[in-house]
Amino acid sequence: MQNNNKSERVRSDEKIALLNDQVAGNGLISRRHLLGLSLAGAGGLVTSSVLAADAGLLTRPAWSMTPGRDPSEYGNPSSHAAQIKRLAPAPNAISPGTGASRTPLHLLQGTITPNSLHFERHHSGVPDIDPAQHRLVLHGMVRQPLEFSYEDLLAYPMVSRVHFLECSGNSGGNSSGASASDGSAGGIHGLLSCAEWTGVRLSTLLDEAGVAAGASWITATGADAASLGRSVPLDKALRDVIIALYQNGEPIRPEQGYPMRMFVPGWEGNVSVKWLTQIKVTDGPANFRDETSRYTELLPDGKSLQFTYPMGVKSVITSPSGQMTLTRHGLHEVTGLAWSGSGSIRRVEISADGGRTWADALIDADQRELALTRFRLPWLWEGAEAVLQSRATDSAGNVQPSRAAWVAQYSPANRYHFNGIQSWAVSAQGEVKNVYA
Amino acid sequence: MQNNNKSERVRSDEKIALLNDQVAGNGLISRRHLLGLSLAGAGGLVTSSVLAADAGLLTRPAWSMTPGRDPSEYGNPSSHAAQIKRLAPAPNAISPGTGASRTPLHLLQGTITPNSLHFERHHSGVPDIDPAQHRLVLHGMVRQPLEFSYEDLLAYPMVSRVHFLECSGNSGGNSSGASASDGSAGGIHGLLSCAEWTGVRLSTLLDEAGVAAGASWITATGADAASLGRSVPLDKALRDVIIALYQNGEPIRPEQGYPMRMFVPGWEGNVSVKWLTQIKVTDGPANFRDETSRYTELLPDGKSLQFTYPMGVKSVITSPSGQMTLTRHGLHEVTGLAWSGSGSIRRVEISADGGRTWADALIDADQRELALTRFRLPWLWEGAEAVLQSRATDSAGNVQPSRAAWVAQYSPANRYHFNGIQSWAVSAQGEVKNVYA
Repeated sequence: MQNNNKSERVRSDEKIALLNDQVAGNGLISRRHLLGLSLAGAGGLVTSSVLAADAGLLTRPAWSMTPGRDPSEYGNPSSHAAQIKRLAPAPNAISPGTGASRTPLHLLQGTITPNSLHFERHHSGVPDIDPAQHRLVLHGMVRQPLEFSYEDLLAYPMVSRVHFLECSGNSGGNSSGASASDGSAGGIHGLLSCAEWTGVRLSTLLDEAGVAAGASWITATGADAASLGRSVPLDKALRDVIIALYQNGEPIRPEQGYPMRMFVPGWEGNVSVKWLTQIKVTDGPANFRDETSRYTELLPDGKSLQFTYPMGVKSVITSPSGQMTLTRHGLHEVTGLAWSGSGSIRRVEISADGGRTWADALIDADQRELALTRFRLPWLWEGAEAVLQSRATDSAGNVQPSRAAWVAQYSPANRYHFNGIQSWAVSAQGEVKNVYA
Repeated sequence: MQNNNKSERVRSDEKIALLNDQVAGNGLISRRHLLGLSLAGAGGLVTSSVLAADAGLLTRPAWSMTPGRDPSEYGNPSSHAAQIKRLAPAPNAISPGTGASRTPLHLLQGTITPNSLHFERHHSGVPDIDPAQHRLVLHGMVRQPLEFSYEDLLAYPMVSRVHFLECSGNSGGNSSGASASDGSAGGIHGLLSCAEWTGVRLSTLLDEAGVAAGASWITATGADAASLGRSVPLDKALRDVIIALYQNGEPIRPEQGYPMRMFVPGWEGNVSVKWLTQIKVTDGPANFRDETSRYTELLPDGKSLQFTYPMGVKSVITSPSGQMTLTRHGLHEVTGLAWSGSGSIRRVEISADGGRTWADALIDADQRELALTRFRLPWLWEGAEAVLQSRATDSAGNVQPSRAAWVAQYSPANRYHFNGIQSWAVSAQGEVKNVYA
């Protein structure tokens, strides 16, 4: 149906105009071109099919000739989009249910992750919990211990907040240099998702129980077979932690802790204890297994950092990204996601020449606290080799480090809290690969 | 497990304090109580189970004793939440595929509608479109007609925006007084949803095609068997209309127009043509069937209003709402949704005495343009009869009308664009019903 050569749709006079608007090396174009100018030029020119359409003579596809299916109770994606799924491993034969599935960031758009594609990380699989039988007990250093059923919690005042969630081990392959060179953005960075979470403030429940003098921490435990537990300082618990009951409007999914999850905004995902069944108010951390043997950062001198909760300022270009191939010369949109566990995203810069020159990307829509932020910038690619990078700065002034600067901070064995800059190499043939630039 | 009488959890001294904070008649309490004070008191007091938990002696449920299931590729809700589904009719035997399913607003929280629960309204069912075979043709009064494949459009610069979508006929039963008295909020008002839509600005494509002098409208047609068509003034088309390709991050669902939909923010849903296959630039509206025989508002004098696109300022309390029963005296959260096709929500007032007195609700989180907004207010209910109402005001100063004021504007036969105030009567037994107060 395409009756033109798309690789020639950016005319030479347009190219000259575009290059006058270059804002950084190797083809990065002013972001004002995203604000209304039409420069993609990917559409095909048509003549005959338009005339036929106007005359009602166009051959109509089968789906236009007969009624489609009825409305339904719970919808599903098109069968033609079945390739858009989480990157899930083969079942774990040694430790059933243990493992992760990753959000296919490179196949998605916007900032909200649909519930069916939110990443998972389990330490003993997904329990099938009957909410009528589930209880949350709040005890320890309180005036009055309390027990809540699911129905009890539904009766409390709630808040709704859009927040990212990122596993502490996300992008870990890039810390060691172990990620496959053809890794996709989702394959490398997909332990990252974002949703609107709704639930009851933990402070509301703590206030009702009455926190005793001298209390300074809480510890939380899940009802999964791993009894996963984590400790959180009391000031954070009172500030913005919620007992999440809803995710993007509907009850949270089993993989995210149905019927209830302690959601800790901006902090490593493991702290947001799923299938929450106990909160104990204490005067110190519990030093659970997942805050001693794991989820600590090994330093060059052999010591470890513990309780390093907030996720670092970070960004990743999701398109073009690993496993993609640019099939035409001309304008492309460079787009991706940025986030920080210490506030909102203030700025995202993009480089097409491996970090020699940088240009500011356009931040699309909201710049919310502790939420994914979408960035975009036009890029004129005419077949030259390129290395695409993005660098985020957050509202606290933190700047995403280079991979080398990040690696220098830790022991080579550390794979937690990697937030170094991602480099995507684009070959002259348009193939995009993960590199350690 | 509950070893206390919940109906007595708000103590008499607390009640006196609460009533000092009453902000409108019949128990509406200052919204500051949503900002940290613990007053729900729904949790049960515990002693023995807490001691057992501390000693590790609590009987653990079955799901805590064995590993759960592995990570998966595309997740689903818990089987225990299976009652949360769209309100779908029996299949239409006379006109297959024609009809609607409604979002169960009363069972959801926050502002984002999960894709599987977004309302549907079809005029000839849901076509199963192969995106590789689908084309969008842009023609008419343009310098150069263009044809776009799905892959073509994916290459264009995109924008992401959170917007509500509401069917023009939403809440129509309340205009005629025909809604069942036990109708749920979703059953009456559920032709309403909200999502993050991502796609290509229509202005980008029109700019590439080159709009001819004298053009003032566009007309859009879908690839469904109904060939549903609508006309949109060119200034709106250039302002904020997008060709939506993604919905909450993933490709839009078949029910919402996969692979592409013309999304027209703030306007009656029917204008957002699904399965978009043609856009024609013209110098006047097409007067399609769905803008002549339908989707016009009949006036008392027998004339009709045509092209009344923006949806009115509106709100609905989703809890407590029809079909619910309050099972305990004490504090409840009154919560619901507000929206306007003419801007953002500036204010929502709530009445518990059928409109005699009003109190400002708390607007939770973002107040975005043309998006659903969540409101909340505490309510102390001690068994008195009540009529709960909400009244929204938008950023343009429009105030949601009473049902009587709305009805007076139109012929009794008109069922489009109903935005009158919803009244939920609460009986002494706690039963909540739709009434025409």
